[in-house]
Amino acid sequence: MFEEGEERKAKYGAENVFDFSLGNPSLEPPTKLKRVLDDLINDPAPGQHAYMPNAGFVETRQAVADYLNKLNRPQFTADEIVMTVGAGGGLNVVLKTILDPGDEVIIPSPYFVEYNFYLDNHQGVPRVVRTKSDFSVDLDTIAEVVTEKTRAVLINSPNNPTGRVYREEELKELGNLLLYYSGKFGQPIYLISDEPYRKIVYDGVAVPSIFNMYNESFVVTSFSKDLSLPGERIGYCAAHPDISDKDIVLAGMVLCNRILGYVNAPALMQRTISHLLEESVDISLYKKKRDMLCDGLASFGYDFVKPEGAFYLFPKSPTEDDVAFVGALQEENILTVPGSGFGGPGYFRIAYCVPDEVIEKALPGFGRVMEKG
Amino acid sequence: MFEEGEERKAKYGAENVFDFSLGNPSLEPPTKLKRVLDDLINDPAPGQHAYMPNAGFVETRQAVADYLNKLNRPQFTADEIVMTVGAGGGLNVVLKTILDPGDEVIIPSPYFVEYNFYLDNHQGVPRVVRTKSDFSVDLDTIAEVVTEKTRAVLINSPNNPTGRVYREEELKELGNLLLYYSGKFGQPIYLISDEPYRKIVYDGVAVPSIFNMYNESFVVTSFSKDLSLPGERIGYCAAHPDISDKDIVLAGMVLCNRILGYVNAPALMQRTISHLLEESVDISLYKKKRDMLCDGLASFGYDFVKPEGAFYLFPKSPTEDDVAFVGALQEENILTVPGSGFGGPGYFRIAYCVPDEVIEKALPGFGRVMEKG
Repeated sequence: MFEEGEERKAKYGAENVFDFSLGNPSLEPPTKLKRVLDDLINDPAPGQHAYMPNAGFVETRQAVADYLNKLNRPQFTADEIVMTVGAGGGLNVVLKTILDPGDEVIIPSPYFVEYNFYLDNHQGVPRVVRTKSDFSVDLDTIAEVVTEKTRAVLINSPNNPTGRVYREEELKELGNLLLYYSGKFGQPIYLISDEPYRKIVYDGVAVPSIFNMYNESFVVTSFSKDLSLPGERIGYCAAHPDISDKDIVLAGMVLCNRILGYVNAPALMQRTISHLLEESVDISLYKKKRDMLCDGLASFGYDFVKPEGAFYLFPKSPTEDDVAFVGALQEENILTVPGSGFGGPGYFRIAYCVPDEVIEKALPGFGRVMEKG
Repeated sequence: MFEEGEERKAKYGAENVFDFSLGNPSLEPPTKLKRVLDDLINDPAPGQHAYMPNAGFVETRQAVADYLNKLNRPQFTADEIVMTVGAGGGLNVVLKTILDPGDEVIIPSPYFVEYNFYLDNHQGVPRVVRTKSDFSVDLDTIAEVVTEKTRAVLINSPNNPTGRVYREEELKELGNLLLYYSGKFGQPIYLISDEPYRKIVYDGVAVPSIFNMYNESFVVTSFSKDLSLPGERIGYCAAHPDISDKDIVLAGMVLCNRILGYVNAPALMQRTISHLLEESVDISLYKKKRDMLCDGLASFGYDFVKPEGAFYLFPKSPTEDDVAFVGALQEENILTVPGSGFGGPGYFRIAYCVPDEVIEKALPGFGRVMEKG
């Protein structure tokens, strides 16, 4: 994707290509980042770039625990936190910890299809289930595929590609369902929540915490999106303080962080983010982009659910074949991704984490393609 | 290991515990690191922490290629370089690229046993073979286990735990052996060289390049040891410019870097090391440590091959049971690792990447334990 966009920009000029294909945040990190990095680099203490425990610096993990303790009823210590190479690293750590070959993981769709690779890395098997028409979790479709092979349900809220935020009631019911089946099959079915967009929400929507709903749970997240640091590969996973077989699970996470070749999350970034846990980029700027895009597309007759969070819009493809429609947009030098690439055929994804003028200048093209039909 | 040492230090006082158990460099990074980081952090260019191509920044990969071109006959471009999350990440990238489940990898022993986990991650199977008494490669033991399932030979020179540097002649013969069997079985048997200690060599010993000996080869390395940056997780893998099926291999490496959850090597460190490729810590300081330790242990009658590189000494255990002997050293608060932990029972490993005074103060203890027998 990245390379394709770059090639097109080289050919037509960067200013004439409207690249909505990547979740690469357009906003710069908060200005505090530079001050923190300056301080850390000028700190004369030795060993700042050395190995630390594989789970990460205790100070960083304690800072994350303190932060989580403000948002959750269950109370965390540094022990339940493992610093990871982004959320991608964190998901692989959790999956390797809990999966045996052939174990199944249920994923509500549309979804970030990279999950398929992450499961395959550990010989896990995805069981993809549909969400409702508003992209909310459909418990019936989940209940239909739960078996004794089900090891986890993997959710992503705010969602990529739909922008949907799951409601408290929805998650509570999901927790109850998993509690029931965990009991029935005599082993925990974990709930894993991938939450890199937690801070990127609009119109006062709150992202409820799964930790308040269900004990057999992990949250995986990164600072890639809310601090605009995707290239730095820094994130963490947190296990519920009351998770079953806690010692084994926590030791497994630390071991997997090591043996998957990550070893530990990058040292300087671990120390950096412990000073930035309360920060984020200015979310109102993403809201402005969302509104510009939604208003523009609505005026052309595009059909979509207005996103509540993240920086993606997932409209219905006006023609049945979403791949063909994305191809038609491409002729206008508008780069988007077919919904089929997210297990959501008949839709397409617009990543609006781009400069305002890209949206502004691309809108007429969206209009022309809609008109052609 | 890390945690064990920390606990003992908390109990007995850090100054009374002599921790030779970890390859965590005691020397600080070169002072140029701070200047480079300062410049990068104060560079106003946008997008410095954003995603880049999964293989890494083109500028960094080109700088690595230019550096390699000074040391090798085959000439590299940025395309053959993939920036990775340390050498641990790089090895996993190469192994996932080349291995099918059940494929075998031959590893001369003693060796870094973490390789077993890395193989297992991708359902590869280690075939561990003995080296000669001077820890040089024994081609006969390799030839004995090569089959049509053999996909690679994995070497590490300068070696952890022995400090051995493989000779040009040795590697040439190994290359010829693999060329013969690649032909016989009709598919390449790769040579993978793990080289994080390449710059840490003594007494004018040179580390010959496998790229000059054999086309079906990969080098994996990091800046963890020569720049003392192990916590930052920055390294790279390079594929031979004339490797078979080059396009598929290179695309596989980039894909694996992404889907293993690394996504890319940490951005700031990528940009940093491109200015530090010619640098290293002051190797003469490690030489001094090696000589202090070797002279001391020799005077007590310890039996060992003097290391030519890296910062490990791998003496024979004076008693048959290396685990028991390491236990006896531990009673003197001297922390080492049994050779069994490296596929080398009857030996033990001393990591001498520690402050000089740790060696100085530990030597009498090494003497007492030897005396007790």
